[in-house]
Amino acid sequence: MSVLNNLKWRYATKKMNGQKVAAEKLENILEAIQLAPTSIGMQPFTVLVIEDPELKAKIAPAIYNQPQITEGSHVLVFAAWKEYSNENVGKYINNIATLRGIPVESLDGLRNMVSGSISGKTPEQLLNWNMRQAYIALGTGLVAAAEEKVDATPMEGFDPDALDRVLGLQEKGLRSTVILALGYRDTEKDKYSSATKIRRAKEELFVRL
Amino acid sequence: MSVLNNLKWRYATKKMNGQKVAAEKLENILEAIQLAPTSIGMQPFTVLVIEDPELKAKIAPAIYNQPQITEGSHVLVFAAWKEYSNENVGKYINNIATLRGIPVESLDGLRNMVSGSISGKTPEQLLNWNMRQAYIALGTGLVAAAEEKVDATPMEGFDPDALDRVLGLQEKGLRSTVILALGYRDTEKDKYSSATKIRRAKEELFVRL
Repeated sequence: MSVLNNLKWRYATKKMNGQKVAAEKLENILEAIQLAPTSIGMQPFTVLVIEDPELKAKIAPAIYNQPQITEGSHVLVFAAWKEYSNENVGKYINNIATLRGIPVESLDGLRNMVSGSISGKTPEQLLNWNMRQAYIALGTGLVAAAEEKVDATPMEGFDPDALDRVLGLQEKGLRSTVILALGYRDTEKDKYSSATKIRRAKEELFVRL
Repeated sequence: MSVLNNLKWRYATKKMNGQKVAAEKLENILEAIQLAPTSIGMQPFTVLVIEDPELKAKIAPAIYNQPQITEGSHVLVFAAWKEYSNENVGKYINNIATLRGIPVESLDGLRNMVSGSISGKTPEQLLNWNMRQAYIALGTGLVAAAEEKVDATPMEGFDPDALDRVLGLQEKGLRSTVILALGYRDTEKDKYSSATKIRRAKEELFVRL
C-alpha cells in the first residue's frame, strides 16, 4: 500500500541539504493541502508558502533557529483564522454557489447554520477549532510530500507571537499554528535518517469494540 | 499523483450502504493512523474502533443519530488524552529505548524536556494540544481509506460529554475529539456522491512569499 510505504519512508527530518523542491512537486503538495476536508468545508486558515531566503532568515529566530528553516526549500506556515469575518463567510457561501451552479439564496440555511456554529463559541474555542482543521491539512500534505519523495518536517517548536509579528499575521486576523518545512534530508548529517521509527504499538493505540 | 486522485475521489459521505470494510483494509487504515507523526512523537490519544452494532446503536444518539454511525462499517472515535500520566510518559520513554535498543537512562534529557513541555501548559492547553495531534492522524487515515476505496467521513457533530459518558472515557482520562466513520457510499441515496467538490481556490488559501 503506497500510503503506508510512504509514511514509513518519511521521518521528521532534522538536517536538510539545501536542495530545491521542484515547482511541480510543490504544487502537488499544496493541492493535497487544498483538498483536505475541514469542518463544514470552511478551510479556516491561510498557508504561507515561504521560499525567499531573506524572509526565511528573518523568521528563523522565531523558530529558535532550527536548521530546517534555512536548509529547507520551502517553509509552509499554517496560520489559523482568529475569527470568521462576514467577508470570509460570504466568500465561502459564494464559492459553493459558483462551483455548484446554484443560487446564493438556496444556501441561506447553511449560512445560518455556520453563523450559529460560530456565535456559540468563545474566541479561544473558535481559534482552537480552526487550528485543528489546519492539522488535517498538515496530515494530507505530509502524505503527499512523501509520495513525491520530498521530506517534510512538522514543527511546533516556535514562538507564535514572535512569528506573527515578523509575518504581520496579527493585523490579518491570523495566528501561526504549525509549520511544515519541505526539502531534502542530509543523510550524512542527520542521524535520524536511519533511526528506527518509534510508534506506539497497535494494541496500545487502538481499543477494539 | 495517487494521493491527489484519491483525495478527489473521497468526499464526506452522508449515506452509507451497510457493506463491511474487509479486515485487511481496516488494518491498513489503522496503520496509517498509527504512523502519523505527532508532536515529540507522543501520540497522545486513543482510537476506539467500534464495529459492534449494539454499541453503535448505543452511541448514535450522542452523535445526533447521523446515519453513518449505523450504516457505516466501523466508527473510529479519536479520544485525546486529558493529561499525561507518569505511566504514559514512562511507556513513551520505554518504547523508544526498546525499539532503538538504547539504555532508558540515555533518554533522561528527553524525559525532562517532555515533562517541561507538559508542566508549562494549563489542562485546557494540554487537551487542545493533544486534540490537534489526533487531527494529523485523521488526515493520514482518510488518505489511506481513500487509497483502499473505503469511504471515510470525518465528523465533529456530536455531543462530546454524552459520547464520553456512553463510552466511559471520562474515567479513563480521555476526551472524544473527532470521529471517522468508515464504510461505503450509497450512491443512490447520497446526493453528495456526485456533487462538485468545494474548495477555496489556491490563490485564496495560499500566500506565496
